[in-house]
Amino acid sequence: MAAPGENLRINADRLWDSLMEMAKIGPGVAGGNNRQTLTDADSEGRKLFQKWCEDAAMTMAVDTMGNMFMTREGTDPNALPVYVGSHLDTQPTGGKYDGVLGVLGGLEVIRTMNDLGIKTKHPVVVTNWTNEEGTRFAPAMLASGVFAGVHDQDWAYDRKDAEGKTFGDELKRLGWVGDEEVGARKDKMHAMFELHIEQGPILEAENKDVGVVTHGQGLSWTQVTITGKESHTGSTPMPLRRNAGLGMARILQLVDEIALSHAPHAVGAAGHIDVYPNSRNVIPGKVIFTVDFRSPDIAVIKNMEERLLAEGQKICDEMKLEVEFEKVGGFDPVEFDKGCVEAVRNAAERLGYSHTNIISGAGHDACWVNKVAPTAMIMCPCVDGLSHNEAEEISKDWAKAGTDVLFHAVVETAEIVE
Amino acid sequence: MAAPGENLRINADRLWDSLMEMAKIGPGVAGGNNRQTLTDADSEGRKLFQKWCEDAAMTMAVDTMGNMFMTREGTDPNALPVYVGSHLDTQPTGGKYDGVLGVLGGLEVIRTMNDLGIKTKHPVVVTNWTNEEGTRFAPAMLASGVFAGVHDQDWAYDRKDAEGKTFGDELKRLGWVGDEEVGARKDKMHAMFELHIEQGPILEAENKDVGVVTHGQGLSWTQVTITGKESHTGSTPMPLRRNAGLGMARILQLVDEIALSHAPHAVGAAGHIDVYPNSRNVIPGKVIFTVDFRSPDIAVIKNMEERLLAEGQKICDEMKLEVEFEKVGGFDPVEFDKGCVEAVRNAAERLGYSHTNIISGAGHDACWVNKVAPTAMIMCPCVDGLSHNEAEEISKDWAKAGTDVLFHAVVETAEIVE
Repeated sequence: MAAPGENLRINADRLWDSLMEMAKIGPGVAGGNNRQTLTDADSEGRKLFQKWCEDAAMTMAVDTMGNMFMTREGTDPNALPVYVGSHLDTQPTGGKYDGVLGVLGGLEVIRTMNDLGIKTKHPVVVTNWTNEEGTRFAPAMLASGVFAGVHDQDWAYDRKDAEGKTFGDELKRLGWVGDEEVGARKDKMHAMFELHIEQGPILEAENKDVGVVTHGQGLSWTQVTITGKESHTGSTPMPLRRNAGLGMARILQLVDEIALSHAPHAVGAAGHIDVYPNSRNVIPGKVIFTVDFRSPDIAVIKNMEERLLAEGQKICDEMKLEVEFEKVGGFDPVEFDKGCVEAVRNAAERLGYSHTNIISGAGHDACWVNKVAPTAMIMCPCVDGLSHNEAEEISKDWAKAGTDVLFHAVVETAEIVE
Repeated sequence: MAAPGENLRINADRLWDSLMEMAKIGPGVAGGNNRQTLTDADSEGRKLFQKWCEDAAMTMAVDTMGNMFMTREGTDPNALPVYVGSHLDTQPTGGKYDGVLGVLGGLEVIRTMNDLGIKTKHPVVVTNWTNEEGTRFAPAMLASGVFAGVHDQDWAYDRKDAEGKTFGDELKRLGWVGDEEVGARKDKMHAMFELHIEQGPILEAENKDVGVVTHGQGLSWTQVTITGKESHTGSTPMPLRRNAGLGMARILQLVDEIALSHAPHAVGAAGHIDVYPNSRNVIPGKVIFTVDFRSPDIAVIKNMEERLLAEGQKICDEMKLEVEFEKVGGFDPVEFDKGCVEAVRNAAERLGYSHTNIISGAGHDACWVNKVAPTAMIMCPCVDGLSHNEAEEISKDWAKAGTDVLFHAVVETAEIVE
């Protein structure tokens, strides 16, 4: 495979300008973004991305899950495409880079190839995967999951947001149901590379330009519903209370203890907690919350799930509370493709960027795509490890290093034609 | 003072029909009511009550807090009125009797007096106090508090609901700002009686018809704001987390321990908990919740508040969380007027109802009015002690017993004119 010369780099100013332009769509309240999946803002962001791709002479295909595939043709009609991409949707209080860097970094790779007149044997396809965040419609990485055959499309269409709107109805409303069958291309992929911010503090702390992602942590989401008895906070004697909020408090502590018992790699917390009826003078009759456990070791994930169910049940039994546990999301730990990982490491070496191996703590579309195609990820640092937060920040130098590595890995894998 | 004959009783069927008619306004989702203060439903309920009172030949006055005073004249123009009443507003998932029984029980007293042609020296005034529940606009008992001089009216007008609407604007929107200065009549009250459901399990467990309320528990509401750091649930190592949700969990356990340390009379819990940004894969950056402590002993309340602040601060310091404590509501324990309490006890004796002394666990408008006029309360049992719940239930016999006692206590205090 022919690699680009070590002096060839992407245009960091152009990349940065595009990131800032995209961030104007669906602005947050504190400098970040609220461009949740399948909102009007998400649709507007997709259209801007489409326009930029078409300006770069790419052609668009959209599948029935709304996944966008923007293709730059190769020279060999029989060569399978090399994919790059990530997601344009954000958390409700999200940042400007989580996902977006991977999509617009992919676009910048194409723009740079155009500038330099680089032709490749394999086509290069920049992808925007629908609903990576999963905040509006759980689970996360929904559309790449359907693409990879992990989820059924009908089930995905039925996912509901907090207002009861379904994924399928919202996708139709916005006009992003494509005519390509989802997953139709999954057996015809040469490779896939996803550039993403780390969303953790390790690269910055170790002063590394680039993370070479070797594995992805597995994830388990369990929705816990505790039912007690709504009653007056003043006139219900303490021994007669069935306080669902107190049951939740004890289980949150249990979750922390379980995760710490598998230090240092396992983590656990609950980010989403709803209390009913949520009134100052009513003892909570019901609490619904979701426990998020992660580990790179599948046996640890199973153990954490089992302890949550057994010990959580015991806590609730003792408090005369009813409890239900429902697994609402999850994926096994991932080992990325050795060849693709090596291409990323080689690119970083060739370009002279400092790098280290890293395990992805978050789930990514690449984790699902790795099931159907050789896949790897590249990470760049983010300030203070902060993500899923409007204050999420990266430097232009970090964006440049990550995208340079993406450029070299992609072009080498797609094979330059002299 | 002349008391009514021991055979004179209220009309329980008529009372029950009125309770059921009122419950049709602002129905809940599970058989109870959602007629929160200063909603369209609350206004509709007020108008029905006004109509019923005017049909019973009473005249209406409304003060600048929207408190409704429905007067049946006495024979002596110089005699100060005897007040009865409670509130028509409900919790978001409230029952049909909490507050409503006290208002419509008062109306039934007047209807019975009309039926029997009873004349009294003192006027009798049936009152509907605005915003007793405090769920929409904290604190509870807002308008009786302004009436009694506990709160300032301008401050009350500025109270905001979850959508940012103010109490004052909503009162104006619905046309319930009266022209009588709030509190103008507070020095001209002969007595006040409030009938209310117990909202606790004691009377039913002891098989008593009526509770003679001697004291009211004091209350302290502290709003706790814990600030940590929003970050990704997957990629933030456990030791670097500043999880506001976990801090909340530990303080909820502390609240339980503090209340139990003052058994059997003290109670403590948090009914209202908001988590931000409340997303499954974001560690909570902020949690706001309100701790509700109650005790009939002011020293115990002070001790519970002090422990919450000191030990809650310690918990948050250890977890590198910031915490703010704001006292958002409270009242001291109440000792009701001995003469009025005696009138209630005498009425129960005369009527042959079983009774017991009881401490009110909940706050009531009577607790504030007791500051400016001789006041007492009557309680009737409720099924399973359940209140602030759509399944709240009482029997018609219980409603009858409580209202019979109210009738006798009021008419004796207002002095029958032969």
